[in-house]
Parts: sequence; C-alpha cells; structure tokens
Amino acid sequence: MAKSRFEYVKQFERENFLLPQTHIVIRVDGKGFHKFSEAYGFEKPNDARALAVMNRTAQTMMEQFPDIVMSYGDSDEYLFLLRKDCELFERREMKLISTFASFMSVNYVMHWNAEFSDNQIRKERLPTFDARAVVYPNSGIVRDYFSWRQVDCHINNLYNTAFWGLIQKCNMTRQDAENKLKGTLSKDKNEILFTKCGINYNNEPEMYKKGTVIVREYENWKHEERDMSSRQKQRNEKMRKNAAIVVSHVDIINDDFWIKRPWVLA
Amino acid sequence: MAKSRFEYVKQFERENFLLPQTHIVIRVDGKGFHKFSEAYGFEKPNDARALAVMNRTAQTMMEQFPDIVMSYGDSDEYLFLLRKDCELFERREMKLISTFASFMSVNYVMHWNAEFSDNQIRKERLPTFDARAVVYPNSGIVRDYFSWRQVDCHINNLYNTAFWGLIQKCNMTRQDAENKLKGTLSKDKNEILFTKCGINYNNEPEMYKKGTVIVREYENWKHEERDMSSRQKQRNEKMRKNAAIVVSHVDIINDDFWIKRPWVLA
Amino acid sequence: MAKSRFEYVKQFERENFLLPQTHIVIRVDGKGFHKFSEAYGFEKPNDARALAVMNRTAQTMMEQFPDIVMSYGDSDEYLFLLRKDCELFERREMKLISTFASFMSVNYVMHWNAEFSDNQIRKERLPTFDARAVVYPNSGIVRDYFSWRQVDCHINNLYNTAFWGLIQKCNMTRQDAENKLKGTLSKDKNEILFTKCGINYNNEPEMYKKGTVIVREYENWKHEERDMSSRQKQRNEKMRKNAAIVVSHVDIINDDFWIKRPWVLA
Amino acid sequence: MAKSRFEYVKQFERENFLLPQTHIVIRVDGKGFHKFSEAYGFEKPNDARALAVMNRTAQTMMEQFPDIVMSYGDSDEYLFLLRKDCELFERREMKLISTFASFMSVNYVMHWNAEFSDNQIRKERLPTFDARAVVYPNSGIVRDYFSWRQVDCHINNLYNTAFWGLIQKCNMTRQDAENKLKGTLSKDKNEILFTKCGINYNNEPEMYKKGTVIVREYENWKHEERDMSSRQKQRNEKMRKNAAIVVSHVDIINDDFWIKRPWVLA
Repeated sequence: MAKSRFEYVKQFERENFLLPQTHIVIRVDGKGFHKFSEAYGFEKPNDARALAVMNRTAQTMMEQFPDIVMSYGDSDEYLFLLRKDCELFERREMKLISTFASFMSVNYVMHWNAEFSDNQIRKERLPTFDARAVVYPNSGIVRDYFSWRQVDCHINNLYNTAFWGLIQKCNMTRQDAENKLKGTLSKDKNEILFTKCGINYNNEPEMYKKGTVIVREYENWKHEERDMSSRQKQRNEKMRKNAAIVVSHVDIINDDFWIKRPWVLA
Repeated sequence: MAKSRFEYVKQFERENFLLPQTHIVIRVDGKGFHKFSEAYGFEKPNDARALAVMNRTAQTMMEQFPDIVMSYGDSDEYLFLLRKDCELFERREMKLISTFASFMSVNYVMHWNAEFSDNQIRKERLPTFDARAVVYPNSGIVRDYFSWRQVDCHINNLYNTAFWGLIQKCNMTRQDAENKLKGTLSKDKNEILFTKCGINYNNEPEMYKKGTVIVREYENWKHEERDMSSRQKQRNEKMRKNAAIVVSHVDIINDDFWIKRPWVLA
Repeated sequence: MAKSRFEYVKQFERENFLLPQTHIVIRVDGKGFHKFSEAYGFEKPNDARALAVMNRTAQTMMEQFPDIVMSYGDSDEYLFLLRKDCELFERREMKLISTFASFMSVNYVMHWNAEFSDNQIRKERLPTFDARAVVYPNSGIVRDYFSWRQVDCHINNLYNTAFWGLIQKCNMTRQDAENKLKGTLSKDKNEILFTKCGINYNNEPEMYKKGTVIVREYENWKHEERDMSSRQKQRNEKMRKNAAIVVSHVDIINDDFWIKRPWVLA
Repeated sequence: MAKSRFEYVKQFERENFLLPQTHIVIRVDGKGFHKFSEAYGFEKPNDARALAVMNRTAQTMMEQFPDIVMSYGDSDEYLFLLRKDCELFERREMKLISTFASFMSVNYVMHWNAEFSDNQIRKERLPTFDARAVVYPNSGIVRDYFSWRQVDCHINNLYNTAFWGLIQKCNMTRQDAENKLKGTLSKDKNEILFTKCGINYNNEPEMYKKGTVIVREYENWKHEERDMSSRQKQRNEKMRKNAAIVVSHVDIINDDFWIKRPWVLA
C-alpha cells in the first residue's frame, strides 16, 4: 500500500519486550467485582457456580494459549504462568496483557451465559478485567509468587467465612461482625467460627480454602534443549497443545506439587 | 490483612506512567478479524451491520469513559483519544490498555448479540481485541495520526471496493482481480470501478470511504485552566459526562473539523 | 567478523528512545560535592573560582554538543536543554546521559587543573557527576523547569549567605546559626543579614543570586521547517556550531529572556 | 525548604529500577578511541602502557564500588559485573550508568597522566566513555556474555596482529594488508603471521589474546543467605571491601575459572 506523509506518527510508538529467559506471570483482576457480585446476586461468602465460571474461563484460556503452563485463581483474580521460553507476541508486553484481558472477558461472558441461563449478562454491568505482566528471573521467586497468592486466598477466605458466618448464623449486623473480628488472629477466627457458628473451617471446601490450580499435565515430558531443531520444536508445540489440562484445589506452597511437575518451572 | 513473607514478590512489578500533559491515543485492533468475518458471514467488501456493531461499541466506550474526547474507527480498528489532562488510572499504561481491550471485547459481544439475534457469538470464534497506547506531545501530531488512519481507510476501501467489484460484477476470480489491480494508482482503480463494474466510487457511502468519527460535543465549552478549583473540576467532569456523543463520517484531515471543536485537542 | 554462538546475549539489551518532538533536559549533579568542597578548601558560602570552573565546563559542553541550546547552572548542578529536533544518539537515553556525565567530569578536571595550578585534582577525591534525562512535551513546562531551578538557587543562596554571615561576621557556631534561621521567611533572612551581618542581599553578586545562564545566541535565526532539505539542515547545523555561546546571570523566570530568544524553545 | 509552584515539573521524571535478583552488567565503551589512540600515538596493534592505564582504571573502579565482583576488559571497553543482590542506587539505571561513565573517565585521566608524564591529556582530545546496563536472569547467560567478549577479543586481536604484522614486517600498505586478509579464516591468519611475519601467534602476550580479567578474591567465602541480619550484611560488606582485587589474563570461557570462584555468580 502507498505510504502517506503522516506515517511518521508511528515513530512515537514504544514497545516493551519482556526480558528473555524469565518467567512471565500475567495476572488478571476483575474490575469492580464487588458491585458485579451484587448485581448478579452472588451467594456469600463464596458462590460456587460463579467460581466455576471463573475456573472454566481460565481453563479455556489454557486451551487457547498453549504457552500457559499453569494458572491459579481465587475470587476475581487469576494468574497465568507462561513457559520460560515463551515467544508469544515476541514477548511484547502490551500485546500480551491486552490480549489476555480481552480473551478473559469474552470467555467469562460465554461461560457465564452458559451457566446462568436465567441470569444472563446485562449491558449495565459487564464483567471486565485488567491485566498486568510481571517477569521473574528464577523459579524460586515464581513459587513464592504463587505461595503469596495462596496464603492470601486462605487469609481472605477465613475472614470472609467468619464474617458471613456471624451474619448468617448469629444474625449479627455487618458492623457488629466487623467489630467482632477486628484484631483477631487466625486461631481466634477458627474458634469464633466453631463456637459461634458451628463451622469447622477445616471441613470447608478445598476450592474456597486453597483456590484453584490448573496445570498442563504431560505424560512423557523431556527437558527442552535450547538448541532444538525446528522439527523438535513443532513436536513439543503439539505436545503442549495435546496435554491434559487438569483442575484441582491443592497446596502449592510446599514442594510436592512442583517436584511432581518439573516442566512447570523448566 | 496480615502480610506474608512472600510479599516481596511485589517488588518485581513495573509500571509505566504515561508522560503527563501529552495526548494519549489508545488503539484497539481486532484479533484475526479476517477469520471472524468469514465465520459470521460478513458481506464484502463492507458489512454495514457489522460496522454498526463496531461503532455502537465505540460509542458505549465513550459513555463508559468520559475521558475519551473523540474516537475514530475503520474496519476492525478503533482509536480513542483521551483528553490531555486525563488522570484515568493515574495514566498507568497497563491498566489503561488492558481495561480498554476488555471493555471493547465485551461491549462488542453485547452489541453483536443484540444486532444479530439469529447469528449469536459462538465460543469457537470470539471477537477479541488487543490495545496499545501511544502518547503525542502536541496537537499537530495527534491530527497527523488521525489523518494517517483516515488516509489508510480510503486506500484500503478503494482497493477492496475495486477488488470485490471485479469479483461480484465481472465474475473474476480472486487471483484475476488481484492481478488486475496490481500496480494501479487511485485514479486507475476509480476508472476500473466505473468502466468495469459500473460503480462511481464517489457515490459509495461516506462510512466506507471516510470511516467513523465519534466526538463528544460541548455546547458551552470553556478552556480548562491548569489551576482550577476542585469544584470547577467536578463541574467539568459532569459536563463531560453529559455531553452529547455524536457519530458522523466526515473529513478529519482538513482544518474544519478541528476548528469547530477546540476542546478535542485542548 | 565471524559471529560466535554467544552473540544471543545481545537480545537482553534494552533501549529507551526518548519521545520525539519533546524537549530533552539533561541534568548533571555533582556526586558528594559537599566533601569535595571541603577537600579542596572552597570558600563559603560561595567560591567564585570553583563556580567559574563549573561554568567553563558547561560552556565547553556547549561547544562539544551543538544540540545544546541553553544551559543553567547553580552550585554543583547543571541543566542542559537540547533543541527539540535533536537526534543526537538517536535520542537513546543511556547513550545521552552516560556521555554527558563522562564529558562533564573530564571537562571539569581539565578546567579545574587549569584554574588551580597549586591545588590539582587528587585521586583520593575526584569530581564526578551523575546525569538524568527528562523530556517535556511543551515549552511552557520547560520554562517552569528552569524557573524551578532558579527559584531554588535563590532560596538556597539566601539561606547560605545568612548562615555563613552569622558564622563569619557574628562568630556564631553552626548550631546557633542554624537555630537562628529555623522557621524564618525570606524577608526575615534579609533582615538578619542586614542588621546582624551588615550585608544588603540585593548587592550580592548576580551569579550567586541567579545562577548562571549560558545560551547559544543566533544573529539571523529563522524558524526551522519540518521538511527542510538536507542542505538546509547542514546550513543550520553549521549555524549552530558557529553561534556565540554567551554566559550571563539573568532572570529566566519572566518572559523577557525567552521572548528575545525564540530559538531556545522552538 | 519552601516549595515553589514550579515543583510539579518533577512529575515528568522517569526511573527504571533494574529487575531485582538479576545479574547487572555495566559495559563502558571508549568514545572515539580510534582518534584518541592516534592523537596520543598508541603503538600498533597493541599499546601495552595504554592498556595498563585501562586496567588500572578498572581496578580503581572495583576499589570504589565494592558491589563489582568482577570485570573484564579489552581494547577500549570494560564490563563490570555487579553482585546479584546489589542495591547500589536502588538499582536505578540512570544513576548507575551515568555514575560509572563519570568515574571511568576521571579515573582514566588520573591514571593516564600518572603513566604518561610527558604526554598528558590535552583538552582537545579527552578520554570519554559511554555506559549501558544489561540485566541477565541467570548465571549461565552471564557466562555466555563474558565468553562472547573474550571470543571477540581473540578474533579482533588475531586480525589486528596479522594486519599490523603485514604492514610493519612486510612493508605492505594498509590497503594491501586488508586485501590479503579478506575472507581468511583463523588458521589462515595464523599461517600468514608465521610465514610472512615470523610471528607465532601462540607466543603473543596473554593480555592481548585473552583480554584482562579482574576479580575480587575471597579467602573464606560463604554463600549469602537471603534473610541475613543487618549485622551479617555489614560483615559481608566489609569482607567485600577488604577482598583482594586480582588482575590476570586467563580463559573465562571454560568452567575452571568459575568453579574456583563460586561467589562471582552467587
């Protein structure tokens, strides 16, 4: 196509190529999901069906982007870990995060409408997400990042379970429940839940306590060599596409999960 | 909430605050819209209803984000110009572009499904967008940026109109039409269109030839002062929210459009 | 030259091209100049000969880099304003600031040793500088930046003049002088200087009160066009190299300075 | 100090904090050292005294910056590897590179003038350096980076030795020498050197063939823990300052060098 004299404006574009050989984590966060959950009548403290929609959305993302090796979600947030050698969009930050935010949103709409046939998404309150990318230079820090989120999930869920327990079982007002919990430690909250609400926190569903882990499971994984032939690369690409995508609600703070799946941080 | 020993991982986050006092343009582009248009049976060379969906989507974006003063769209792309003083998300690039990509996508789904009740969005082929932000230090370059896109719209549409004219009116194959047009200038394409296909390009719809311009129209606009009181700022914020959002298909290369709307580049 | 298999490490390099059509200010700051001034026995509050070394250093920089249109210095800092169209090092930030820091340092050593033949630079205490680049989208903000520095120069010099006046004329200790000045306004300091030290601040040298302004003065300046021929560009390049470089200690907060020299912010 | 209304200009400053837990390499390059070497009459192909000045300069840098664990130099370039946990200037890129460029330049001037009392640095031709920072996520890539430079040193030195050998021993013109070497492989150059110039390349000084390696040598090194007490940190800081700084001209491509010094990449 002919070039116009206006073409120079492209010189103002800036691109951030994420550092090679680092682990890219893309984190998506729901925008205003507090209001969203009210508008669509979420159950409190956790809405199992709405969480299932989030998890199916993330699973679909992993089908759509074979470079995602693992994801972790809790509440209205999801982390996607890309494999270290990932060259998706040449590692361009803006392409990566805007594409992830876009796919996340439309996948969510599709899964929501499939799940809630009588409570379809309305244009007055849309499920939208922002996204950010962070790069981590080594696998230890990636694990700490996931640990951080799982600890956070536990802390938030314990609080929310106690808070809503006091409201729903003991007929407290929100303000009273908040005051009751102010300054309490984990063990205090466990105690309150047990004695006041008759809830043994240990028996709460794993999905609420640990969040959701989705991982690409390989049967015959071999460490990728830097100098692979392009044919080997295609074979691996195919292997990634065909790998089972498995959902669970397990501990990812201890070593066990990672030792069994060396490819995640390879 | 308690802090865990893993919290240090936040130190790896990076943020790009877009330079203050510059014009931010956020450009969204449809991903794989060639395949999308095939999957949903777009008319060629232009599908008026699909373009209307894009335009309604952009209009909804302007309602949702009062900081957008103007937008311009053609084919599967849209530009959003934010007002120069815009402080949305503290001008954080990642927040801005991921949010815009997310809103664009879900708004598009909603408007599409409203328009095409018998051809709803299917999960196998979703409308997704990427987004990028570019900052321009002065209004002259912003105008050149919009001019660039409108010139591009014209060049592409003339080609596509001639290409599909040859196929649809003269029963040429795609390959023959491509060969016929290779190396032709604008006037040649106009000539071919007229003599071979009986189409006077000048009579083609303005929306196809010029793209779509959406602008926030103020009735009583006054230049904003840097040192406005916060009350004045609120009044302006309100004015922006209430301003009419007007769609047209006009020339934005010449001065006329801009002289009449001094607030766009203020 | 042959390429080795290690060459891939270059992919890790990152470059920041400063936004085109913005005003680049490079600011250099002396590192540890408090200790430097003690090691070489500077007179207090101002050492005229040491300041002259700084000013000659900046003037030499302007001879070495024709893209500098103006500089402003005070104490151990200097600002260099590059002309808006400057393409030096393709506007690469790292090249620009490391080169400026390097030239600043060696020029300073040369001028110092020329001025102080009996007090040569010693390897135990070297004059070094760091540098940063800031881009400003329009001329108004550039002026505010220079105003900020000149206001700062005034505030610091008034304080230092009063502080050292109390010590040198009234035999106060440093601690007493500090206490005396704590919480005082400008007019109080003027009053203290006059009544306690017999110093009329207005009569202090302009170099101390206003800092030093160095500007490239053109005789027959014409506004540069964006679409100049390369021959015209060479002529302008030559004009810049040959322009007189003039040192003064004048007000740069009011309009007068800038109106007389339209090329500085062109 | 009082704040002026101009202070807002600081908002335009941008800072790049280099990614934590990565290896920072700062590379300084002489600016226009071809002309510099002509102006000061360097011997060709290598000037032992000028190289000694470069090496002393780098050694002094290591004394001044205890965070440098190793450096490597050849011709007019030097690489400085900072320890992975380095927090110098909070890892701010602009501070780091401008400071390194500045120190490099003035140290060079001091060492040059000490070495060449009859050929002092003249203001018409100053030794200046630019600097860049690159971060590497793991130690393997850091080693590859150093290997790349040492291979480059070898390739350049072999060529230069052959080129100047043909000129100095065989009275060839520069053009003839260049033609003679065009398209030759390493073994051809070795052969030419031996048969035409009577030079056995293997007997050339190690400094020319391998460049210069400077390393901080610890006697009783222990791996640093992430969660060290601040007292331990101070002890380590002291250890770093007191460690011997040892210059050699050894192979750094093979494992031996690195295995013996685990602290370099720790």
